[in-house]
Amino acid sequence: MTQATQHQTQQTSATFKALKCKECGTEYEPQAIHVCEECFGPLEVSYDYDALRRHVTRETIQAGPNSIWRYRPFLPVMTDNPIDVGTGMTPLVKSNRLARRLGLKNLYIKNDAVNMPTLSFKDRVVSVALTRAKELGFSTVSCASTGNLANSTAAIAAHAGLDCCVFIPADLEAGKVLGTLIYSPTVMAVEGNYDQVNRLCCEVANTHGWGFVNINLRPYYSEGSKTLGYEVAEQLGWKLPDHIVAPLASGSLFTKIYKGFQEFIQVGLVDDKKVRFSGAQAEGCSPIAQAFREGRDFVTPVKPNTIAKSIAIGNPADGVYAVDIAQKTGGNIESVSDAEIVEGMKLLAETEGIFTETAGGTTIAVLKKLVEAGKIDPDETTVVYITGNGLKTQEAIQGYIGEPLTIEPKLDSFERALERSHTLDRLEWQQVLI
Amino acid sequence: MTQATQHQTQQTSATFKALKCKECGTEYEPQAIHVCEECFGPLEVSYDYDALRRHVTRETIQAGPNSIWRYRPFLPVMTDNPIDVGTGMTPLVKSNRLARRLGLKNLYIKNDAVNMPTLSFKDRVVSVALTRAKELGFSTVSCASTGNLANSTAAIAAHAGLDCCVFIPADLEAGKVLGTLIYSPTVMAVEGNYDQVNRLCCEVANTHGWGFVNINLRPYYSEGSKTLGYEVAEQLGWKLPDHIVAPLASGSLFTKIYKGFQEFIQVGLVDDKKVRFSGAQAEGCSPIAQAFREGRDFVTPVKPNTIAKSIAIGNPADGVYAVDIAQKTGGNIESVSDAEIVEGMKLLAETEGIFTETAGGTTIAVLKKLVEAGKIDPDETTVVYITGNGLKTQEAIQGYIGEPLTIEPKLDSFERALERSHTLDRLEWQQVLI
Repeated sequence: MTQATQHQTQQTSATFKALKCKECGTEYEPQAIHVCEECFGPLEVSYDYDALRRHVTRETIQAGPNSIWRYRPFLPVMTDNPIDVGTGMTPLVKSNRLARRLGLKNLYIKNDAVNMPTLSFKDRVVSVALTRAKELGFSTVSCASTGNLANSTAAIAAHAGLDCCVFIPADLEAGKVLGTLIYSPTVMAVEGNYDQVNRLCCEVANTHGWGFVNINLRPYYSEGSKTLGYEVAEQLGWKLPDHIVAPLASGSLFTKIYKGFQEFIQVGLVDDKKVRFSGAQAEGCSPIAQAFREGRDFVTPVKPNTIAKSIAIGNPADGVYAVDIAQKTGGNIESVSDAEIVEGMKLLAETEGIFTETAGGTTIAVLKKLVEAGKIDPDETTVVYITGNGLKTQEAIQGYIGEPLTIEPKLDSFERALERSHTLDRLEWQQVLI
Repeated sequence: MTQATQHQTQQTSATFKALKCKECGTEYEPQAIHVCEECFGPLEVSYDYDALRRHVTRETIQAGPNSIWRYRPFLPVMTDNPIDVGTGMTPLVKSNRLARRLGLKNLYIKNDAVNMPTLSFKDRVVSVALTRAKELGFSTVSCASTGNLANSTAAIAAHAGLDCCVFIPADLEAGKVLGTLIYSPTVMAVEGNYDQVNRLCCEVANTHGWGFVNINLRPYYSEGSKTLGYEVAEQLGWKLPDHIVAPLASGSLFTKIYKGFQEFIQVGLVDDKKVRFSGAQAEGCSPIAQAFREGRDFVTPVKPNTIAKSIAIGNPADGVYAVDIAQKTGGNIESVSDAEIVEGMKLLAETEGIFTETAGGTTIAVLKKLVEAGKIDPDETTVVYITGNGLKTQEAIQGYIGEPLTIEPKLDSFERALERSHTLDRLEWQQVLI
């Protein structure tokens, strides 16, 4: 792997202007930096919204590719040839059977469990980050990951012909490790939790000239999540929903969906409207939910211990911003147990035919909890973000989903098995009645 | 589960007319039947192509949904509200890095490894079959499956609120079993190979009133695969490719891509053109490749023994039609070893960032073999169909894809591991040179 040649910024008609500190507002040239030199606040990309308002319409977007790149003017890249492997434009599924089960009337699942190419919302942020990495001259890309990000970075780097080295906690689910190794990157399995992996990567980013998608490229990377806001607005017929429920790991996804909605309002693509933002965490790693519950404006780090490894970030970078958004929009942040997470995965699969990973189970379980607590109005148009695929976390449900009935290839063997299963169904049913 | 109430055919403006025997031409009302009563030939759906020519244009298709249902007039359903969970319109990826590796110039991957909702092309056929099953009044749906079909039938039945019982060979990959059980259907694991499962299901279809998607609903079901032809034509800018390579299991997919191209020519949506059709089988189950090699017009059944279980059909229903198409279009049918299949999976992942299952590895390995034998011209616009996802067949590559480098969460531990991996790279490189 070669060292990156950085800082080759070109002049183009890009609508993004600068990096701006979220805390003190200091502006920087759009390079591979992510922390304000003045106040150590996080940097965020700013745009020329007047230009966007003049040049972007619903029609120009609809005439674009069937991927996140239909929103290219809202994304921090200069090229007209971004890395496009079909990422984004995942289905917004009207979920009538799940809605009925929960007592809701207008429920939608935004299904990134089938996002392309690696079946999680991370493909959005990585497509943006690697496109920008190429513009900035990096030849080696990297990330600190709980699994999905490693899958996505390795896959899209392979497609783009970039060298790749990913860092993961050593105890990840087998499907996530194998789903990274298949693309032949260098994989560093760190004996520690995600927060330790992340700290190590910050050091490596400082000492090697690599493009870490979620460290020195983080301002660009995180903007990719805005497309989860844009797509929902477009798929609802250029309207915003009343309420969204999304998982919280670092909190970045949550804040960027919010930014996406705000930008669409600002440039006139949708009518202004208050959308309630509710967030989901696993009890075993719920620092943001705890801060929300206690009305704090700071997040106290925790040591993760949950089956929902993909959202197990004990020291969430954007936690305080997530709390702020939930508070000011009238939403909630809740947490659920590992047992509830498994039930959430099963509930979504049985009612809607969507097989999500533990993070999605968390989100569905929190949805259920919020409905039962009266914190979601049955009439609200509610969108639930499902961010990853269940085939990657098979361990989590092994032992909780029944077993096949083994039979011989003969009609009478089948008939006997069917009779047994009907009897079992009746017994279960009687137990319900008792 | 309740018995199906069949035969509730409604009158609508559907463009499909009848079921017609592929052998003797006898026509039947479009009911849940699949075999000709006169000659035992397979039944196929026929359409009013004059009406299609008058009413369907490129524009009407493009104005349709972003799923297989944009081609609804070419599909055998009457409803205007089919089961649409976003199936189809998967990316057609220009595969420059794989092309360069093989010495081709115009290579595309049609990537159904990310089809929705269950990550294989089977979601296409099942969406059509279950929509038709509801029209015909079935309340329980079923299938004989090598895995992907069970995943898809169980998931889409869950979404549609249909009862579901699937039949699989007992020795399937863990991911395929679990990826079915999660949707809570009844799963019958049959101690036998797929051909034995299929024979049992034929008996069950005759004795129970269930809708078996690939038996009594097979004429409708199989039409769903035509969308893999339509989409490629549309995605190439309403042009047909020069050459396609697809996996062969029953042979149905192959014949339906062909039918899709022919229909688009017939109704004037694309220019007439000869497309070469090449097929891929695993050596351990290659009855169609053997028939092609020996110039036979019949297929001799074999007993499957390969890691490519999803295409391990020893007695392929449409095998002779596949041989015929390969012969008359100037294509080829080849087979590859299990070792070549694994190499094919790795090659596609490393060059294009697409993680496919064993069937896709088979197809890539056959592509390579055909190129090396001079049977694909480097200049031909070649489309390779990747039909399923690698997360479902993790066993196949375990032990063949390297391992993570385990490190402590410290910079010096990382530096030492990186140095080791560079040394290993150099040694491998020296071995190549030796």
